[in-house]
Amino acid sequence: MAQFQLNILGCGSAIPTARHNPSSQIIDIRDNLFMIDCGEGSQLTMRKMRLKYARLNNIFISHLHGDHCLGLTGLLSSMALQEKSGTLTIHIFEEGADLFDQQLKFFCRDTPYEIKFNIIKPERATIFESNAITVETIPLFHRVPCVGFLFKEKPKLRHLKGDMVKFYEIPVKDIHGIKEGNDFITPQGVLVPNSHLTSDPSPSMSYAYCSDTAFNPQVAESVKGVNTIYHEATYTNEFISIAGKRGHSTSAQAAQIAKMAGAERLILGHFSKRYRDESGLLNEAKTIFDNTILANDGMRIDLL
Amino acid sequence: MAQFQLNILGCGSAIPTARHNPSSQIIDIRDNLFMIDCGEGSQLTMRKMRLKYARLNNIFISHLHGDHCLGLTGLLSSMALQEKSGTLTIHIFEEGADLFDQQLKFFCRDTPYEIKFNIIKPERATIFESNAITVETIPLFHRVPCVGFLFKEKPKLRHLKGDMVKFYEIPVKDIHGIKEGNDFITPQGVLVPNSHLTSDPSPSMSYAYCSDTAFNPQVAESVKGVNTIYHEATYTNEFISIAGKRGHSTSAQAAQIAKMAGAERLILGHFSKRYRDESGLLNEAKTIFDNTILANDGMRIDLL
Repeated sequence: MAQFQLNILGCGSAIPTARHNPSSQIIDIRDNLFMIDCGEGSQLTMRKMRLKYARLNNIFISHLHGDHCLGLTGLLSSMALQEKSGTLTIHIFEEGADLFDQQLKFFCRDTPYEIKFNIIKPERATIFESNAITVETIPLFHRVPCVGFLFKEKPKLRHLKGDMVKFYEIPVKDIHGIKEGNDFITPQGVLVPNSHLTSDPSPSMSYAYCSDTAFNPQVAESVKGVNTIYHEATYTNEFISIAGKRGHSTSAQAAQIAKMAGAERLILGHFSKRYRDESGLLNEAKTIFDNTILANDGMRIDLL
Repeated sequence: MAQFQLNILGCGSAIPTARHNPSSQIIDIRDNLFMIDCGEGSQLTMRKMRLKYARLNNIFISHLHGDHCLGLTGLLSSMALQEKSGTLTIHIFEEGADLFDQQLKFFCRDTPYEIKFNIIKPERATIFESNAITVETIPLFHRVPCVGFLFKEKPKLRHLKGDMVKFYEIPVKDIHGIKEGNDFITPQGVLVPNSHLTSDPSPSMSYAYCSDTAFNPQVAESVKGVNTIYHEATYTNEFISIAGKRGHSTSAQAAQIAKMAGAERLILGHFSKRYRDESGLLNEAKTIFDNTILANDGMRIDLL
């Protein structure tokens, strides 16, 4: 079972090509699937990657350009024909909810699951929270209102020191509290500080999805200290002026954001169809931020 | 340049699979493209098959199930980013026009081409006519209102006998009329009958798209004498009862329709995802109608 895994369904830009599907990703957190963007064809890639409809309960739509959301109706109507139950929440701008509501009501009639909209805004906010993670919106700088999504694992439980648990004969009912940081008081009234009983928890990881956006240092500020950042790199620096005009970034700019944010790893995506091979984009970014990789359709990356 | 060519973009059924896209076809008549149905992903297959957006001016939607129309918004928004100009007409039921109008207005803003809806009804009618062809709707028998489309080439011009044209020194201005069947009167007032000057024209071909539909002899009546019929064959006869309940046909039933219609050729399509290999469907049909072939994504067939 994946602990915190990124699955890339598509990393192309506006016009789909034979090489790349339009934008879509799925974060798999212990078999709970979270989809980010849903370009046309995402339902098919999801099936090819054996990501189960039944496990998907949240879809986050960054903005209302077709290449980021036109797979929604198809995916949801196929889910209606399949094993899906429970509630599916679509986190989307209000205008998007209006746009899809009528079609979903028509094409997903008699669904065995409920479709809910959670209206998001182009501002910083926590829009989702579970026991394991929070999801925040990050304002981006595109031609239309657009947000990134910052996935953060919540602090994890401390690791028990097995020998100490044995030594102090700690009863089962106290174990969870000690993992959370409680001290232990022995039947004799002696306080054993938590630090004797546990070691630090595994680090909580984070992942930021930043697409689509023009270069803006505020993006780096918003995701400061993130472990892995996926940043759009539609063009090489040669087209820096077109990138700016269209609300997109170059590969070098994506690398600058990763560097400024102090990220550990950068994944480049949202490639213009002009590139038959993205090695130029990769090389450009690597001169600024070495731990960079290229996204690709069908790729899985453990974010731990 | 293709004279009358069928291009199959997808021939799967409700759930897209790695083997088959959902329904979509393009009839190419001397570089004028006519699309029939537009399942999700059709825009991509169109590009893979090098069928140009600029040449597509008419899209015919058989019915409002997602696998026959959910590629519309994506295709039209990509066309807006590409070289398309002029008018694109979508022939669709009124409910479909309502369903897509809002999305198209949003995702295809500032298009360099005009989008028009031609409202069709589930009845027999001529819905399109050009110099070269007519397109008629054929009532089908599905769970929701559904029509097939009958493409007919108009009668062609008669073939000139070159030696006769020379012998009678027929002026250029009279040539077109003679190809249309006129007699010729010499400057001396002698009538030369058309049959001396021309031979019969090439036959006018026809093509019927019949998907989705339960078996019904009325379909055969509607397409009597058609040259090529594409008929859905979702299942083998083993599932004849499910087919009937779901408004679909078996392969044997498709073959019976082709036989009853006196068609020359049958193309089977709209395959259930349960079949990894459609040879069973083909064999079943061939016992009833020998000149049967299986559709496949990316297939091109000259209908002449």
